[in-house]
Formats: sequence, structure tokens, C-alpha cells
Amino acid sequence: MPDQRIISREEISGFAREFRRTFVNSLSGFKSLHLCGTIDFQHRTNLSVMNSVIHIGADPPLLGMVFRPDVVERHTLTNLEQTGFFTLSQVTEPMCRQAHQTSARYPQEVSEFDATGLTPWYSGRLPAPYVAESPVKIGLQLQERHHIMVNATLLVVGRVLEVILPDAVIGPDGFVDLEQAGVLAASGLDAYFRTQRVARYGYAKPGQLPELLP
Amino acid sequence: MPDQRIISREEISGFAREFRRTFVNSLSGFKSLHLCGTIDFQHRTNLSVMNSVIHIGADPPLLGMVFRPDVVERHTLTNLEQTGFFTLSQVTEPMCRQAHQTSARYPQEVSEFDATGLTPWYSGRLPAPYVAESPVKIGLQLQERHHIMVNATLLVVGRVLEVILPDAVIGPDGFVDLEQAGVLAASGLDAYFRTQRVARYGYAKPGQLPELLP
Repeated sequence: MPDQRIISREEISGFAREFRRTFVNSLSGFKSLHLCGTIDFQHRTNLSVMNSVIHIGADPPLLGMVFRPDVVERHTLTNLEQTGFFTLSQVTEPMCRQAHQTSARYPQEVSEFDATGLTPWYSGRLPAPYVAESPVKIGLQLQERHHIMVNATLLVVGRVLEVILPDAVIGPDGFVDLEQAGVLAASGLDAYFRTQRVARYGYAKPGQLPELLP
Repeated sequence: MPDQRIISREEISGFAREFRRTFVNSLSGFKSLHLCGTIDFQHRTNLSVMNSVIHIGADPPLLGMVFRPDVVERHTLTNLEQTGFFTLSQVTEPMCRQAHQTSARYPQEVSEFDATGLTPWYSGRLPAPYVAESPVKIGLQLQERHHIMVNATLLVVGRVLEVILPDAVIGPDGFVDLEQAGVLAASGLDAYFRTQRVARYGYAKPGQLPELLP
């Protein structure tokens, strides 16, 4: 392929800092997009856009997310560690610019709910706020933390306490149709995407190509 | 919202196993989609679809991925731990069904390259094979492992050794346009998606809405 370029680790190390940050952040593929809601002991709320949420396990239901050492979402991490609770609200197109705006460096006393106009909503099951505008909301309790030594990032694992979503997007086999719910995907640090389903395939078995699911 | 449903952790625990697995796997939002290539000391190759790859850091460039304890990609994990090297090849629409098929439980002596017809390709910089058909290829060396205690999953962190991709998809600021490269996103265990960009926004600052980037 004549237009292919091979970029070595040495070349990446030599990139300017912002260029490298933007480049490497694109490499992990498309990302999930959530707003993480927390509250501190003085009832001050915080909201932070997250694109590092991943599936950790189904039984018990567990999600993970990565915190970088030097970043804005430090208020989120502090609150999460103080109270032990956090929420994830998935982001749709009408909420997208406000979600991005939560990454601005607001002081601790400013709630990103107030700053962006997104609406806090409480289920009563945990102290942290959800984003009312979001169609898919997940409430979690802190379960484990793992320090990644090489660059001082932190993997936080949370246990799902409740899920709030439209009944219509849950399929007969349990599949949650995020596209139908209007949820966006992310890439890099600042790009947001609609999706269009190509296929769902059945359980793969040796010797036969997987079937298309409806 | 009258159609909203609140599903508690107790209700999730009571779901049938397959329903719960499908349901919870959808909750983490859209996912990245890679094929992980490895080789063992007998030069037997292995290829496994992964939807848990995440960004860990830019300097040094690091990616992570999660391995479940009871799964097919055990051969991948064994090879990766034996040799210390693995590749990630991002998945496009023409490769999608073959990528899904690599999740079938083939015996160790069967290479998923042979079974699916995907083509192994070697850069010479590391022993593990890439998928020739993939437009975005990343070579990595094992850096760290973290055991998630609550469910015996494993987070593997790899350091990027090289990136191979079309020069045309790298923007002037370092942004890699995965959509232009034809890379897909995933959801749940078996759903695959094209993307359509909604927006890229500039660096967010308090007091002003973020600018649209070209």
C-alpha cells in the first residue's frame, strides 16, 4: 500500500506534545461517551465528560474508567472517593456541546450542571446526580482501584447499582440498542459521532460463518 | 419520562445468564474494535476480536485491554505473555464478519488467520502478525498487568512500538480520522457500526461555549 506510513515509537516520542496527545488518543479506536456525576459532603455537584468507560464484567455487573493524573476530572475522583458513589449518563447529540464543555477547568465551587445548563436528577438510590437529559443512566458504587505504574493513571472499577433507560431500547435477548436511544460515540479527545448499524452476528462457531441477527 | 424503566442490581442479578450478559455488555457505551494478533514459540499465529481496548496514556503511548477469565482469547493471552508482543489491527466493514468469526472456539493448533481467510502480515519490528487488510495497525509490547479482584479479569497494558496507517488520515493537529479510514465501532458482544461525525470541538474554557473544529 503506497500511502501507508510506518511511525515508530521514536518518531512518536519526537512529536510535539499536543500533536502526540491528539495522535495517540485517536489510536484506541472509537470510545464510549458518558457524563460522570458526583457530589461532595457539602452537597456540591460535579459533572465530567468521560471517554474511557469500559465493560469489566456482567455478573456482578461492573464498569471501569481511567483517570489521568493531571486532569480536570480530579474533582470527580475526589468526590467519588469521598462518597463511594458515582453516576454515568450517556450523551446524545443535543447534549454533545454541553458535555464537551464540562471538560473546562472550572473551580471546585462551580458545578458543571450550572455552568452548562444540564439538569441534575436524583433517583433516591444513591447520593450522586444523574443528567436528566440523558436516555441511559447508570448508578455505581466504587469497588476497586488499580494504579497503573508506568504513567500514574488510575483504573476505577464500579459496581452497577441501577440502570435507568427507556424500556423500548431493551431487546428480547437483553441487547440495549444505544443507537436507537440516540447515544453518541467518541474518538480522540474532542470528536463525536452518530452510529449506523452494519450488523449483529450470532454466536460464532468453528466451521460456519456467523449468522446475521435481526 | 413515562417509558423510563429503573432496573435495580437485584433485578439484574435475577436475569437469566445470557440475557444479563447481553444486557450488561451494552451498558458501557460504544466500544473500540480491534483484532489482536499474537504468535507462540512454535510460530503458530492467533487472532482474536477485542472490544475492550482503551487509551491509557500518550507519553509514553500506552493502550490497555481487558481479558475475561473464561474466554476464547486465552490463546491470545498465553502467547502475549510468552513472547511479550501483540498487535492490534482495526476492523473495517469488509472484514467485520471474519473479525466476529475469530471469537469461535478454535483449538490452539488452528490459526484464526487460516480459519477466516484474513491475511497475516509482519512488519519486522516485532514477532506478532498484523492483519494485512486493516488500515490502522498498532504494534505493542507488554508493559503491565493488573488483576481485577472482584471477578478475576485482567487488564493488560501495552506500550506502542509502532503505528502503521495511511498518511492521508492523519490531520495537521495529529488527529487520526478513523471514520475516513473506514474503521467500525462495536456495541455489546456482537453489534458493529459505521460512524458519522457530528462535531469536533476546540479545547473547552470556562465562560464560553467550545468552538467547532473543521
